Amino acid sequence: MKKIEIELREKTYPIFIGAGILRNFDKIIDASFKNERIAVAADKRVVKLHRQKLLPLINMKKRKAEVFLFDASEKNKNLAGISKIYSFLQERNYGRDSLIVSAGGGITGDTAAFAASTYMRGIKYVNIPTTLLSAVDSSIGGKTGVNFNGIKNFIGTFYHPEFVIIDTEFFATLPADEIICGLGELVKTAFLAGGKFYNSLYNSIEEIAGGNFKGIENIIYDAVSFKAGVVASDEKEKGLRKILNLGHTFSHAVEKESGFAVKHGQAVIFGIVAALSLSKNMALVTARDYASKLEFIGKIKKKIKVPLISPEILYDAMLSDKKNRSGRIKFVLPGMPGNAVIDAEADKKQVLKAIVTAYNYFK
Amino acid sequence: MKKIEIELREKTYPIFIGAGILRNFDKIIDASFKNERIAVAADKRVVKLHRQKLLPLINMKKRKAEVFLFDASEKNKNLAGISKIYSFLQERNYGRDSLIVSAGGGITGDTAAFAASTYMRGIKYVNIPTTLLSAVDSSIGGKTGVNFNGIKNFIGTFYHPEFVIIDTEFFATLPADEIICGLGELVKTAFLAGGKFYNSLYNSIEEIAGGNFKGIENIIYDAVSFKAGVVASDEKEKGLRKILNLGHTFSHAVEKESGFAVKHGQAVIFGIVAALSLSKNMALVTARDYASKLEFIGKIKKKIKVPLISPEILYDAMLSDKKNRSGRIKFVLPGMPGNAVIDAEADKKQVLKAIVTAYNYFK
Repeated sequence: MKKIEIELREKTYPIFIGAGILRNFDKIIDASFKNERIAVAADKRVVKLHRQKLLPLINMKKRKAEVFLFDASEKNKNLAGISKIYSFLQERNYGRDSLIVSAGGGITGDTAAFAASTYMRGIKYVNIPTTLLSAVDSSIGGKTGVNFNGIKNFIGTFYHPEFVIIDTEFFATLPADEIICGLGELVKTAFLAGGKFYNSLYNSIEEIAGGNFKGIENIIYDAVSFKAGVVASDEKEKGLRKILNLGHTFSHAVEKESGFAVKHGQAVIFGIVAALSLSKNMALVTARDYASKLEFIGKIKKKIKVPLISPEILYDAMLSDKKNRSGRIKFVLPGMPGNAVIDAEADKKQVLKAIVTAYNYFK
Repeated sequence: MKKIEIELREKTYPIFIGAGILRNFDKIIDASFKNERIAVAADKRVVKLHRQKLLPLINMKKRKAEVFLFDASEKNKNLAGISKIYSFLQERNYGRDSLIVSAGGGITGDTAAFAASTYMRGIKYVNIPTTLLSAVDSSIGGKTGVNFNGIKNFIGTFYHPEFVIIDTEFFATLPADEIICGLGELVKTAFLAGGKFYNSLYNSIEEIAGGNFKGIENIIYDAVSFKAGVVASDEKEKGLRKILNLGHTFSHAVEKESGFAVKHGQAVIFGIVAALSLSKNMALVTARDYASKLEFIGKIKKKIKVPLISPEILYDAMLSDKKNRSGRIKFVLPGMPGNAVIDAEADKKQVLKAIVTAYNYFK
């Protein structure tokens, strides 16, 4: 088992990473919580696939948790979905000394964490991400959120868990396109972090994409450490943390305009290619760097499927993104190796061209 | 104009108190905010009564604010009410660099502050309380919240404004029972703070109840200073801050079971009398102290109207209060002068008796 401490101004908390570590849940919980009543908010698909693995959460020696089954989907990630969690807790008289444990992917985690942050002005929260994507991305950094009027994560809070447990055994049942989603954020991290992590992901990306998780513990450890460092420097995303949105301006538009048929991590890879193209045209990356990054993504490009959407429509969607409310679209673009340019602006023509380039790349 | 700084770990912000100080809103805003787009969430009754006073908020020299008219009532203080604010902002493309200014009583402030704390994970917020009650109570301390399934302030956050502007000119149009509401929290503060403030409120309470606000600036200054000190010591209400709930276990039950026909401050005074009675029976206050506090409240007791509700029903409502989810009712009770006992428990019989005593007192 590996452990990373997230050090924030207000709070420090650990992230545990390992295969099968959930079997020790009882011990971890008892070491941290004496009297808290526990509610588990679990994605119902995860419960179906991993009933045995989840038993340590529910049948603890000293107390029993009650389970809220969440039908995790973007269309339930909203205030109505949150209200169901509130009602579940309220009807069962959960008080301020309560703890919500979420078990599921990013949708489950973001929703449960938002509920935890607002139920009686905040109760304790533990996150058990069960997908590669949520393990390396949404479970780290304290962003909670739900969709509002079709705009993703429009309503939310900054709220940190007591700890995060990444048990890599969950990944065994991930469908191929979910693994690609996780790789989307990992590729992004590799482009941002550069150096050693760039090389180790480059060397293992095909194996991971094929469902071989032998070296995944180290990959996750490095990716989480990188994100933890960024978040610790700029928790509220006033500056540096924006780099984590590399390619995301494009990807949010693709997700939205596909009616969320394209999953987040897949859209991120598409978005990174579009951002790379924009970077090249704005002379922010060298031709050689551009080519080597495209070659990196090339290792999984066949697994990316983004339906053709008019670039004009994607452009308009970017304008209505929550980060671009002032009428100008801000991009995070790849820069020189291990660097990114934040708050970049670009001509509409160049943006449309970058989208076309990305479509051609994945054709 | 008086000024108090609230000093918290994360943030320090000022509270301005004075008659007519809203006329300088333009200057105050321009000194603090350069680029923020401003939305004013105003109680529609306040807009009707004080259109002239609110003009400086809307027609600023450098920018115009848009006004969201809020129909402030307990039945709109919920997720549906919050959603209307979200939609108002979203449709007008308010971005992260936005500021919500609320103008109204506690319902308007609590609701607008919750919206500000969750819109795009938090935008800036300024509170202009227009009632005596909200000026001395809800506008100080960073508690935001809305009702959920009929339970008051069940959903919320801790979130602080950039500043609070208490312009006492608003009080001129307060109906008599609203003034009593403010006095309810002021009496509570006097019982907690003791000393000089106890005496000055004792000497001026009848004048204030009659609508004479000549000395109100000093009264508010002292009450806000007291609450600010408590909040600074224990922002998240883990210990000391609980004293501010003196009498509130009773008052929340009265409000709920009257269908919110009894207003908060009125219910607080009723609750303080019940708590006093419980304290006396548990030997937490002397007979002399008990008598002198009842005499204090006696100055306004004729203005308190609480319909008769079965003590048993009130007891059950207390059990379902959000602070008592563990099955035991926790009271904050008056102790020796300038003191209070927190997390007190009592026999059901004693609690019922205290409620009957309070009803007899106000008969």
